[in-house]
Amino acid sequence: MLSKAKLKYIKSLQLKKYRKEEQRFIVEGARSVAELLDSDFQITMLAATPDFLHQQVKRLAKRDMETIESSEQQLAAAGSLETNESAIAVVQMKPNEPPRLPANEFTLVLDDIRDPGNLGTIIRTADWYGIYNIIASGETADVYNPKTIGASMGSFLRVRLFYTVLTDYLRDAPKLYGTFLKGTDVHTIPFAKEGFIVIGNESNGISAAVEGLIHERIMIPRYGAAESLNAGVAAAVVLDNLRRSKK
Amino acid sequence: MLSKAKLKYIKSLQLKKYRKEEQRFIVEGARSVAELLDSDFQITMLAATPDFLHQQVKRLAKRDMETIESSEQQLAAAGSLETNESAIAVVQMKPNEPPRLPANEFTLVLDDIRDPGNLGTIIRTADWYGIYNIIASGETADVYNPKTIGASMGSFLRVRLFYTVLTDYLRDAPKLYGTFLKGTDVHTIPFAKEGFIVIGNESNGISAAVEGLIHERIMIPRYGAAESLNAGVAAAVVLDNLRRSKK
Repeated sequence: MLSKAKLKYIKSLQLKKYRKEEQRFIVEGARSVAELLDSDFQITMLAATPDFLHQQVKRLAKRDMETIESSEQQLAAAGSLETNESAIAVVQMKPNEPPRLPANEFTLVLDDIRDPGNLGTIIRTADWYGIYNIIASGETADVYNPKTIGASMGSFLRVRLFYTVLTDYLRDAPKLYGTFLKGTDVHTIPFAKEGFIVIGNESNGISAAVEGLIHERIMIPRYGAAESLNAGVAAAVVLDNLRRSKK
Repeated sequence: MLSKAKLKYIKSLQLKKYRKEEQRFIVEGARSVAELLDSDFQITMLAATPDFLHQQVKRLAKRDMETIESSEQQLAAAGSLETNESAIAVVQMKPNEPPRLPANEFTLVLDDIRDPGNLGTIIRTADWYGIYNIIASGETADVYNPKTIGASMGSFLRVRLFYTVLTDYLRDAPKLYGTFLKGTDVHTIPFAKEGFIVIGNESNGISAAVEGLIHERIMIPRYGAAESLNAGVAAAVVLDNLRRSKK
């Protein structure tokens, strides 16, 4: 059974302040936790229903961690999800060490994506399109926010996200694309072999400082009247066109 | 000033039950309300800050409705947004009369899109790609939910959404595409001149009953490891490829 102290500890990790202090975060829901068990993330605690523990007995045998049998009610109280709670894991963060990129690949750059759900959707989309590194500004939502982890649908396990000062990091980038309302048509642009693609903030787009570093402005053609696209949607359309252009 | 009774009335419209009874919904935020004033929607009440009323004096002159000068605090109390409240309008719903379609155009079909934010994003995306009719199952989220209206970023003013029984409505559809994990590659499919494109539920995809009516299964090629795409992202990628294919 989950003690009051442990329940309180898990709940505290819903807040960025405590996640940062502890360098730990939570992963919730049967599906995400099952995938997590197969990953190289270090799990420090697992609270789950007897059913879940029974189903995952093989995966659990390979893991050394504190395992606490809990009721659905307890898990619902500890977690952030409204429904479907059968497992919550406390997980060690990985170090935030942005690698030198790119090397024959494309990297997504997020310039202040503020909404945790949007961020999770972008991580999931990156995973779909085989983009495994994301570089994000310090003002971007926290990748370890339970909403981001949830919306990523397990893709946070495969896609690494690093926070850094974009203007420093991108200064010597070989090829830097940015999405704007005006630019080269994403349907016809000949994408380079490798590079960075910057997605701007939900309301304000790409910041002036980062805009100054962009080599090529790209735009998604509009056929109707909306003023803009959702940032996650824009990222997906650009990545789809990138992959399509290389067929 | 907003009376307690009116504040309570506006708040009640955050709930579907009262929206349905009243056949009214709320539109919040300076930008959306300004666009609303230019539309053909019937506004029955407008509560706004003196600043907003002053800025919109020309648009307001063309409208006949109850206008209530309010403080930001009052508007924040009445609305569903956390920030940036300077106007809330109470608006008459339009009749739910699904038209006979298509006629040289494409129509989006939503088979149980449950998340109000996803729904709003899809409406915004449809507006970007010039899709002005959406047919939705009865289990799809409420288009008049404040979260949907908010996420649509004003596009609900241009895109009409109708609820109906999909299996009845689509029975005689001339060309019905559905998005699946397996099917014809959306990058290379020769889309017809007109038709319907069905987007399935966030967790379960397209329902068996609707699947039985689909003429052509389409899929978005995957280059990585994610199991699926967010429903709103999938809709956007399909619409982008549809428009691109007609260039």
